[in-house]
Formats: sequence, structure tokens, C-alpha cells
Amino acid sequence: MSDAEAIARKYFDKSLTDRERAIFEGAITLGATYHQFVGTPIARDERVVKSLEDAVNNAMALQPHKRSVRLKIDRSVLKGEKAHPYDYETLKGRHMDLQVVSEYGDSRVTLRMRYVPDVDFTLMYVEKIEKISK
Amino acid sequence: MSDAEAIARKYFDKSLTDRERAIFEGAITLGATYHQFVGTPIARDERVVKSLEDAVNNAMALQPHKRSVRLKIDRSVLKGEKAHPYDYETLKGRHMDLQVVSEYGDSRVTLRMRYVPDVDFTLMYVEKIEKISK
Amino acid sequence: MSDAEAIARKYFDKSLTDRERAIFEGAITLGATYHQFVGTPIARDERVVKSLEDAVNNAMALQPHKRSVRLKIDRSVLKGEKAHPYDYETLKGRHMDLQVVSEYGDSRVTLRMRYVPDVDFTLMYVEKIEKISK
Amino acid sequence: MSDAEAIARKYFDKSLTDRERAIFEGAITLGATYHQFVGTPIARDERVVKSLEDAVNNAMALQPHKRSVRLKIDRSVLKGEKAHPYDYETLKGRHMDLQVVSEYGDSRVTLRMRYVPDVDFTLMYVEKIEKISK
Repeated sequence: MSDAEAIARKYFDKSLTDRERAIFEGAITLGATYHQFVGTPIARDERVVKSLEDAVNNAMALQPHKRSVRLKIDRSVLKGEKAHPYDYETLKGRHMDLQVVSEYGDSRVTLRMRYVPDVDFTLMYVEKIEKISK
Repeated sequence: MSDAEAIARKYFDKSLTDRERAIFEGAITLGATYHQFVGTPIARDERVVKSLEDAVNNAMALQPHKRSVRLKIDRSVLKGEKAHPYDYETLKGRHMDLQVVSEYGDSRVTLRMRYVPDVDFTLMYVEKIEKISK
Repeated sequence: MSDAEAIARKYFDKSLTDRERAIFEGAITLGATYHQFVGTPIARDERVVKSLEDAVNNAMALQPHKRSVRLKIDRSVLKGEKAHPYDYETLKGRHMDLQVVSEYGDSRVTLRMRYVPDVDFTLMYVEKIEKISK
Repeated sequence: MSDAEAIARKYFDKSLTDRERAIFEGAITLGATYHQFVGTPIARDERVVKSLEDAVNNAMALQPHKRSVRLKIDRSVLKGEKAHPYDYETLKGRHMDLQVVSEYGDSRVTLRMRYVPDVDFTLMYVEKIEKISK
């Protein structure tokens, strides 16, 4: 553990387990990603979509205790080639399928955000929790 | 539990406890609040500061399983009265002290975000975990 | 003109008129407001909606050379009372009717942003330009 | 002029010149870019910085009447290699040098946003206005 992590850790409730901490760190990145990037202009142009996915993945993985961040923007629901100046969209929850993997101590957690028609909501959830060897 | 919650719950890892779920929901709101509102123009004008605090508290408490959201913006570090057109700031992590209380099942969790000079970082952490009667 | 404005002005193209400068300053605030606040949780709850309108109006009016900022969120298109944890929306362009009035030298400009069904777009435009006595 | 542009144009003040319209469209993108991307995690890692620049340039150029958008993030003021989990920054105005070129009818306008120490402000300004042949 780095010195900085040792300092940060003192602020946390002492009963928090590694597993809970990994869930906590992953959830932050789900909320952060949605609220940072929703509203960004987007169109079904591979260059635009791919560069936004790359930027999100690289930037958000800087957040503490992230193993990986992987955004997939659903091209199929985006408008096609821009036909006039106003023919594009802005990024919404229903365009995004986001997977975040966080790790802390002996725990690895896979979290997900994607539009769930059942509840008409861009749901954030914990998909998988694993024990790893430190 | 509402029908919608029962549906949403099916997406989550089955081993997730109420306590973990409450931590998860609170952490989302920490990340979301920072990334939604950072960059907002701000000045040491009580009307401006108070209305931003109110808006953040009311809006973010709409997120699932929140009991309360309470942002305090540190007036003391903001620039004073606006002396010319460029004499104001935009909201940064170090201006914010955010407390989020989330609840799920038998657990109530208090989470916090504030600037921590020790690590020169706007730290998000789990402050307190309580058992409540459902 | 404040000293700061005299300094800032040196960066601008010398041929820029007061009228053009007022248009410029107002347009910045249209773009800024949309991209700062889109994604904020919102529901048809007067306390939530009114506090967000107030915060936007107060904060964005801090930007240089603004006379007023007035956001109206269209309550009629928002979901009604929250029936379950996932029953709310996030702010979108089609919820907003934004009027910005900017002034520079002898010119006052009224700018607007609102959803225009004709082009299925949240259109930003210059509504009115007036000459004022300095 | 596309049909959609003809429709959109009807919303604008009739006295607006092409030159003013180009200024208007460029200014929107300055305000939009700042408020969309400020707060994004960033570090002096070429992959992170370059992918964010690319995403901003591609996405913001979708806005109406843009010829180009070119963001340069100042690597020299960013923290170096990440030494511990909290050792990174979030994007601020002072990291950005943004150039937007907009065109409308017979006018091309170059606009700029960059930190100006003179006024301790991330200044947005009109750098150059040119007449072009339609």
C-alpha cells in the first residue's frame, strides 16, 4: 500500500472490507462517467464514436483503484450520416454500455451501467464480485 | 420493495448484501455530483452559493435509495464581491464538502467528499455504516 | 470600462463591434448552460425544478457581460410524482427554455435556446438586438 | 442552404449578418467545450491526453457551422507519471488552449479560449474574422 493510500484509508469507516471498498470505488466511476459525458455531441461516425470511447476509457481509468473502464456506445441507435447542421445528437444514458472493473485488496468487482427497458432507466449495478490473490 | 426495485435487483450479483448495496448507491452520488457540477460559475455571493447548494441537494437526492444529500460550499475560499467581469471562479472539488446518506434494506451509510490536504485530493470516502430497523 | 476589461479587450479582433461582442458573450452562455447542466436529475417536483432554475440563473449570470439569465424548465413534459426509485429523468435540451440577455457598450442582445420540433433540435438563436444608450 | 438551415434561420433576428452568425456559432462551442469537459480526470500520459483532445475535437466539430475544433492540452502544467492512486488531476480551464473556426455564408471566424494570466481567467475571445468566397 502506498503512503497516500495509507493516509486516505484513515478517513474510511474501520469496518469497511476490501470487497466493500472495491464496490465503493467502482460505483464512483459509474456515477462520474455518466454525469461527466452525457450531453457530448455524438453521431454515427466511427471516428467520433471511437475517439469518445477511447477518451472515456483512458480518463476514467485514472480514478483510484480501477483495473479497467470499457465504454461501448451503441452505434445502432445513433442517427446516421449528418444530413444537415442540426442532424446529430448528444450522448444519453441509453447510448452507453459501461463496464468498470475495480480492485482493492483481495477483491475484484465488475460493475455495469446500461439502459434497462424493464425499468426505463440507465441502471447501474454490481455484476460480479471475485476474490483475487493479492 | 416496489416492483421496479424487484426488477432492478435481478441485475445485481446475488451475493450482494444490503450494506454493500447502500455503499454502492451512495458512492454513485458522490461521483455523479462532482462530475455534474464542477465547472459551474461561482462567487462569494450568498444568493449564488445557496441556490447552487439547494439545487444540488434537491436534484441529487432523486437518485435511487438516497435519504439525504447535503452540499456545503466553502465560502471562505471563494473570491469576494465581483470587482470586474472576469472576477469569479468555477466550482472545484476543493470548494465542496458533500455528505450523502443512502439506505438499503437494513443498512444506512453516510458517505463524504471533501478536499483532503494530506493527499492533495478531493477524497470520497465511507464515513459511517449503521444498521437500521427496516 | 474596468482595467480588466481593457486588458481582455486587447485579445479580441480590432474590427469587432459592440453589437458583435454582445452576441459573442451571450452565445457563450447558451452553450455553457446546456453542457453544464444537461444530465442533472430532475422530476416534476416544484422544489427540485425551481431550485435548479434559480441555481442556473444565478450562476450563469456571473459570466461576463450578462444582464440576465432566465431558464424555464417545462414542467408539463416531466414525469409526475416519483413512484419508485428509478422513476425520474435527467435534464435534456427539450426540457429547457433559456433566455440570456447580454450587453456590451451600446448593444443589448437577447438570445434564446429551446427545443424546436421543426428541426428536432434544441436550437440556440439570436432573438433580438437593441441599441442602448451607454 | 439546407432546408433545415432555412427553417432554423427563421428564428434568428432578421438583421443578423453572416459575420455575426459565424461569431455566434463559434462562441457557443467555446462555452460548450469548457462546461462539457472540465472535471474530466487527466494526467501527463500521452495516451490519456491525446485521446481526450481527439474526442473533444471530433465531438464538438459536430455542432452547427463548425469548420474545425482544435484543443491543445498543456502537458507541461500537468502532473507527471501517476505515483499513487490520488496522484492525478481533473481538467481545468488553465490546461486548455482551444481554437474554434466557424463559417457562415461569406464569413469565417477564428475563436480562442485560453488561460490569460493578466486577468487570471480562462478568456474566450474572437481572434480573427475573414471574408471568404461562398
